[in-house]
Amino acid sequence: MATNQQIVLAALPQGRLTADAFQLLESPMPAPGAGEVLTRTRLLSIDAANRAWMQGATYRGALGAGQVMDGFTLAEVVKSNDPGFAPGDIVEADNGWQQFAVHPAGRLTRVTVRGELSHHLSVLGVTGLTAYFGLLDIGRPEPGETVLVSAAAGATGNVVGQIAKLHGCRVVGVASSADKCAFLTEQLGFDAAVPHRDENFRGLLKAATPDGVDVYFDNVGGDVLGAALWRMNQHGRIVCCGVVSQYDTSDPAPGPRGVPGLLVTKRLRMEGFIVMDHFGPDGAARAKAEETLAGWVAAGQLRVVEDGVDGLERAPAALIDLLAGGNLGKRFVRVT
Amino acid sequence: MATNQQIVLAALPQGRLTADAFQLLESPMPAPGAGEVLTRTRLLSIDAANRAWMQGATYRGALGAGQVMDGFTLAEVVKSNDPGFAPGDIVEADNGWQQFAVHPAGRLTRVTVRGELSHHLSVLGVTGLTAYFGLLDIGRPEPGETVLVSAAAGATGNVVGQIAKLHGCRVVGVASSADKCAFLTEQLGFDAAVPHRDENFRGLLKAATPDGVDVYFDNVGGDVLGAALWRMNQHGRIVCCGVVSQYDTSDPAPGPRGVPGLLVTKRLRMEGFIVMDHFGPDGAARAKAEETLAGWVAAGQLRVVEDGVDGLERAPAALIDLLAGGNLGKRFVRVT
Repeated sequence: MATNQQIVLAALPQGRLTADAFQLLESPMPAPGAGEVLTRTRLLSIDAANRAWMQGATYRGALGAGQVMDGFTLAEVVKSNDPGFAPGDIVEADNGWQQFAVHPAGRLTRVTVRGELSHHLSVLGVTGLTAYFGLLDIGRPEPGETVLVSAAAGATGNVVGQIAKLHGCRVVGVASSADKCAFLTEQLGFDAAVPHRDENFRGLLKAATPDGVDVYFDNVGGDVLGAALWRMNQHGRIVCCGVVSQYDTSDPAPGPRGVPGLLVTKRLRMEGFIVMDHFGPDGAARAKAEETLAGWVAAGQLRVVEDGVDGLERAPAALIDLLAGGNLGKRFVRVT
Repeated sequence: MATNQQIVLAALPQGRLTADAFQLLESPMPAPGAGEVLTRTRLLSIDAANRAWMQGATYRGALGAGQVMDGFTLAEVVKSNDPGFAPGDIVEADNGWQQFAVHPAGRLTRVTVRGELSHHLSVLGVTGLTAYFGLLDIGRPEPGETVLVSAAAGATGNVVGQIAKLHGCRVVGVASSADKCAFLTEQLGFDAAVPHRDENFRGLLKAATPDGVDVYFDNVGGDVLGAALWRMNQHGRIVCCGVVSQYDTSDPAPGPRGVPGLLVTKRLRMEGFIVMDHFGPDGAARAKAEETLAGWVAAGQLRVVEDGVDGLERAPAALIDLLAGGNLGKRFVRVT
């Protein structure tokens, strides 16, 4: 009898996440009921936000100990009790960290695959769409402006920087290591990149942004946000996308100095967003954005940066390493 | 020979502002040169921002020790060497803390007085306009939404709350004392008011905002902002107007916990502004706003709350007391 390999969050982490928070199980294969669909996980998205879910309720419910670890996936329909889906269909599904999952049909979104399946997790998926809508709808950069992006070699950040370049902006990235910075400037066309672990980070950032910063796309919060606030130009915009610096802890730091004082004196707008809010009625805005992104990729104007690993059992290490800044581009696990 | 009474900022304060930071002088009467205008200070505005100017550059240059204390005033033209102004004209002028000042004509803005002169410092002046544009342009409340305002018994806050009521919102104020809270609910029509010095402030705030907060008009920053962030509804807006809690110190506190995390998960917009940016071409938007505010006052829909004291020599005490929360409504000094 077929089984379902699962990774359970055995205990909520105290402090930094470690591998012993997870446990690999073999469970019975689930069976779809009426109106339900059985799916097989193909690609499991590994995101810094996975760690934030362990801290409490966010834009989704908090994770609890003992449950299968949550995760966004691209999955393939194995068996369908709903006329809308057939075996072989590729769907977006919250399968979590397991090989198989059953969902009511209404919880699945069909994917029309263009080229590589993984692109639907990276540049054409939530990651790329987050970069696209966050930068353009919230940041609203004008050609010639300076766009700063943190976690710039990460899944979202690298796409933000590349789109900003396509919009005629000067683009500066912040990344964890000198190697990543070199990748950004040499391979992705960033105008400058600054390693945030350098002890002279603020000085390097200042030198890299001689005309100040008009749009800061913030994936990390914390000290990098604190430094960026001082570099913002009047009427600047800060796109609040994530807070990676504060996820892997049970004791998040206070907010940066200068909030809200610098917002007043510089007339700054700081705005958070969740990408799904920008998909438009019937997903029309999403479809248009995906079309635009796919066009840039096809024309060689937007490079797809992916960082896949093989095997569900490697998911814990993939997440822990990502939280330490180990990934380059979109990280995911090839499950089956 | 006539003299000019002046109050000089003798030394920049270390820690909290005290009276010995100031010194009263008698100086020679200034004389206007070509194209200049001599004005006599009528009303001197006392604002929490006066203290912020001692901390460094803001939207204006930093104050230095030894200079006449800066301050916004309504003044009367005494002698004019410019055809655009005549003795008796009332003007907005940065006279600072002194009886007389000379300005190039281009630095003065004529005021067409409606009724009480002091209204042009309070409800029809920068204070009222700050409330008007900040609430309506930045906060954009809808009828039925909950508007929270801090320093609600202060110059700007009381007008914010009253305008929000006129827009059909539920209005909750935060003020320093129980007396002020009673004034807000009993005299100004606020739906609720919460004293922020109460040790159960967060609990009281929660009880006063059962449907959460859609727009928070923040005059204080610090702990009150920190508490408000947790009460914000999804897609809420925080109008960053001032940071009174962090002005009277040489060592401002870190920003509130939850920045930027709560901005992301709740899709919040947090935006600073300076009222002058909203006056429109040729001041058309300002004129329209003043007309609207004057109409509400004339109709008895907007109560003017003022807190004037007599004599330039009382300006230091008036500012120190205001920083401790001693004022009710717009504080100013009647100089002459």
